[in-house]
Amino acid sequence: MFESAEIGHRVEKERWKQESARLRHALLQAQYRLLNEGRTAVLILVNGVDGAGRGETVNTLNEWMDPRHIRTEAFGPQTPEDRKHPEMWRFWQVLPPKGRIGIFFGSWYTDPVASFARGGETHARFVQRLERIRQFERMLVAEGVVLVKLWFHLSKKAARERLKTLQSDPKTAWRVTPQDKDNLRRYDRFIEVSDEALRKTSLGEASWLVIEGSDPAYRTLSAAQHLLQAMQGAFARRSAADGSTAAAGPAAAPDRVLQQPPFLALDSRSLLKVQDYTRSLKRSVYEDELEHWQGKLALLSRDARMHKRALALVFEGMDAAGKGSTIRRITQALDARFYRVVPVAAPNENERAQPYLWRFWRYIPDLGKSVIFDRSWYGRVLVERVEGLCAPADWMRAYGEINEYEEELCDAGVVIVKIWLAITPEEQLRRFREREQTLYKNFKITPEDWRNREKWPQYERAVEEMIDRTSTQVAPWYIVASDNKHWSRIEVLRHLCQRLEAAL
Amino acid sequence: MFESAEIGHRVEKERWKQESARLRHALLQAQYRLLNEGRTAVLILVNGVDGAGRGETVNTLNEWMDPRHIRTEAFGPQTPEDRKHPEMWRFWQVLPPKGRIGIFFGSWYTDPVASFARGGETHARFVQRLERIRQFERMLVAEGVVLVKLWFHLSKKAARERLKTLQSDPKTAWRVTPQDKDNLRRYDRFIEVSDEALRKTSLGEASWLVIEGSDPAYRTLSAAQHLLQAMQGAFARRSAADGSTAAAGPAAAPDRVLQQPPFLALDSRSLLKVQDYTRSLKRSVYEDELEHWQGKLALLSRDARMHKRALALVFEGMDAAGKGSTIRRITQALDARFYRVVPVAAPNENERAQPYLWRFWRYIPDLGKSVIFDRSWYGRVLVERVEGLCAPADWMRAYGEINEYEEELCDAGVVIVKIWLAITPEEQLRRFREREQTLYKNFKITPEDWRNREKWPQYERAVEEMIDRTSTQVAPWYIVASDNKHWSRIEVLRHLCQRLEAAL
Repeated sequence: MFESAEIGHRVEKERWKQESARLRHALLQAQYRLLNEGRTAVLILVNGVDGAGRGETVNTLNEWMDPRHIRTEAFGPQTPEDRKHPEMWRFWQVLPPKGRIGIFFGSWYTDPVASFARGGETHARFVQRLERIRQFERMLVAEGVVLVKLWFHLSKKAARERLKTLQSDPKTAWRVTPQDKDNLRRYDRFIEVSDEALRKTSLGEASWLVIEGSDPAYRTLSAAQHLLQAMQGAFARRSAADGSTAAAGPAAAPDRVLQQPPFLALDSRSLLKVQDYTRSLKRSVYEDELEHWQGKLALLSRDARMHKRALALVFEGMDAAGKGSTIRRITQALDARFYRVVPVAAPNENERAQPYLWRFWRYIPDLGKSVIFDRSWYGRVLVERVEGLCAPADWMRAYGEINEYEEELCDAGVVIVKIWLAITPEEQLRRFREREQTLYKNFKITPEDWRNREKWPQYERAVEEMIDRTSTQVAPWYIVASDNKHWSRIEVLRHLCQRLEAAL
Repeated sequence: MFESAEIGHRVEKERWKQESARLRHALLQAQYRLLNEGRTAVLILVNGVDGAGRGETVNTLNEWMDPRHIRTEAFGPQTPEDRKHPEMWRFWQVLPPKGRIGIFFGSWYTDPVASFARGGETHARFVQRLERIRQFERMLVAEGVVLVKLWFHLSKKAARERLKTLQSDPKTAWRVTPQDKDNLRRYDRFIEVSDEALRKTSLGEASWLVIEGSDPAYRTLSAAQHLLQAMQGAFARRSAADGSTAAAGPAAAPDRVLQQPPFLALDSRSLLKVQDYTRSLKRSVYEDELEHWQGKLALLSRDARMHKRALALVFEGMDAAGKGSTIRRITQALDARFYRVVPVAAPNENERAQPYLWRFWRYIPDLGKSVIFDRSWYGRVLVERVEGLCAPADWMRAYGEINEYEEELCDAGVVIVKIWLAITPEEQLRRFREREQTLYKNFKITPEDWRNREKWPQYERAVEEMIDRTSTQVAPWYIVASDNKHWSRIEVLRHLCQRLEAAL
């Protein structure tokens, strides 16, 4: 959930000047359109980690737009007075009416996350409260509220450094309260609980945007840009609905198709770009390591405790990333009676006649067995998204459906390990050429590979959103830099062994 | 939930002949259209009470349609083998593909209801499983599956009589198993748990139809008619979506607007018609009773335990049903400092700028207080539905939203009492005329009242669906026959006192 909010996003001064002027102007215009049309309300939820710039962002949004038409409310944990009313009561009292913008600094997430993280409530109660939130948000969206959910994140390291910096300066030391120190101590637990909250409430129609909070310029622009796109998306949907009503009669009226706004990178950092692709292993070291980790995997996979567990190992990666050869290094360590490799291509006719997850439900490993997926259900949010094989609304709801699916597998004892084999475009090109030139590799390169390569930026974007939305505590993604195959294979084996070890 | 499935629905022989021939023909046609288009799958869930005709209905559906394109599967509680897989696994294996019809006799509801009803599982676990079901069904619908959820019901009396009849005949006595007797003993608990399951899984896009199971002709025609309408609705939505795509471009494509098929009554019995409108009270008896119950209400409302509870009393009824005068009889017993009467008319401008439940959240009684609603949030599914003031999709999702709302109030200590004052159209006419002729009542009758009266059948239908979908264990509806005002007022006071007593 928080992967791409820990890579040091940073906006340069020149860019800031230019973008802040543009966004400021556009936001104000959008705010007035909202006000004049009076058909939608906008509600911005501001949550996240201490010190990640929530308050500053709220202030900036108020400064950039016309604050007379914005209502900002702060919500902490429930007070005893709040507890006398239904949980949602205090939020209902201050919902923004149509035409207006509401900013909730802290929200209906604050108390459930805090209460569960601090051990004051059971997990069952936490899950129930999240479910109530989901119903509530679904209702708001159906009633025409544009819900913008922002989560400001700091890595543990960044959070620690922030406190240190504040404390070291007598002018700011007073800002560090015992509560801050206590929160830092509970950082891991807070993130774990937040991960579950975000995962279970990322509806297609109101999903979270996680923003890295360490650079003020980056976080402000991210929030502002996201808000602008949400408002523009709502205007566009309204217009389309009005148009289709006129054309097709009342049956087509409240059209709720979600469209994806164009993605504008604010800096050149991205989850895939920040990987270190230069690491490599010498053949002799590689061979020793391979033997070591394959031996370990052989033992782990034959451990008696594995009879009550199953393994689903998912490989995804750009063309020529090395999925097949990596899988072979893994199966060499496994007992052929207990694993199967499932290569996933375009769905056949039977599969197209079913919900997209259907074909993967059929391959769920029995307890004691392993299934290795060479591509997987993530095709929905990768190739199907990029190639337009399904509607935006369909792949946007898929993140939640996939998280739900993986949680069900987990509950049933399946250990899920998801690997993204990351290569650079340069390395892909090298491998493509090699395939063309080597006779026995010739069959592995087709015109389609070259076509896909042209869409590299769209795929990259889809991969990053996939990892942000589906890397969960239950089933995290491992991104493995794979320009060097030796390095990559050992990394994969190591991740796999460590995760199995932790699960047994 | 089960109100209108306990009123002795019964289809006459002549009607049966006529309707069964018509439906049989239409279903077969629809089945072939489904098959030829190959764009949607239909999945029918058959659940309910023992002996309510589930098996017979499944057989009839197979007989009426082409069984080669129907796949019927039976599901009981999970076996130990099932438990080795994720819960939904066994259902995924046999989902009908596009073009086909699947009938699940027993379904993903069977095990959660049975496990919780028999005490094998906690309430929290039950709620979690229902939530998983909700997600799953939402996904199925989004993937284009038409989900038809049928619940066959028998009143406790009917269930008991059925067993007796079977036992009394040596030819059928063998059919009564110890399990049947055990189930009958647990009837109340089973119904209570089922009520929660149905309430929490009646999504707008896949709501339950509860069918009274005592008369074979009635239950068969009900199920068949509902199935036919669901299929025809899906065809219509497809056509509309195709049309609007052509007209308005891709943005308007997957249109999910729900349309309400015309309602065809199979017999003349209905929840409102079966009330006994002839009951009355003599003035002298009435005055004694009034004093008695008002005294009781006065004591109950001043009970110290009421400081931790609140009361929301909802009055709905046709025009001139006596809401105002009944409310006065209640407030006479209350302390003016602790109650307020909220008359609900059409929403004003501020209210229209918010989600429809917003204005009612504002009137939630504080602990220790009472609020009496003269009309209420049920306007959404009554006047707004009948007058077309909101789209079908909006009032259809409202049942679930209202149930959720009332459950939240309940959790916060609010006792909800909902009264439908039922009058006959003849009595309404009499009262309208009286209002026209009595000078000081003249202001109470307007041309709008006469207009509403013309839509009596549509209102009646809306009322019955409202009661079926929102009368829950948490907040049941009381239907009070009110042609005689004396009788009605005492009944209301009695229900109110009894419910308060039970809640304290």
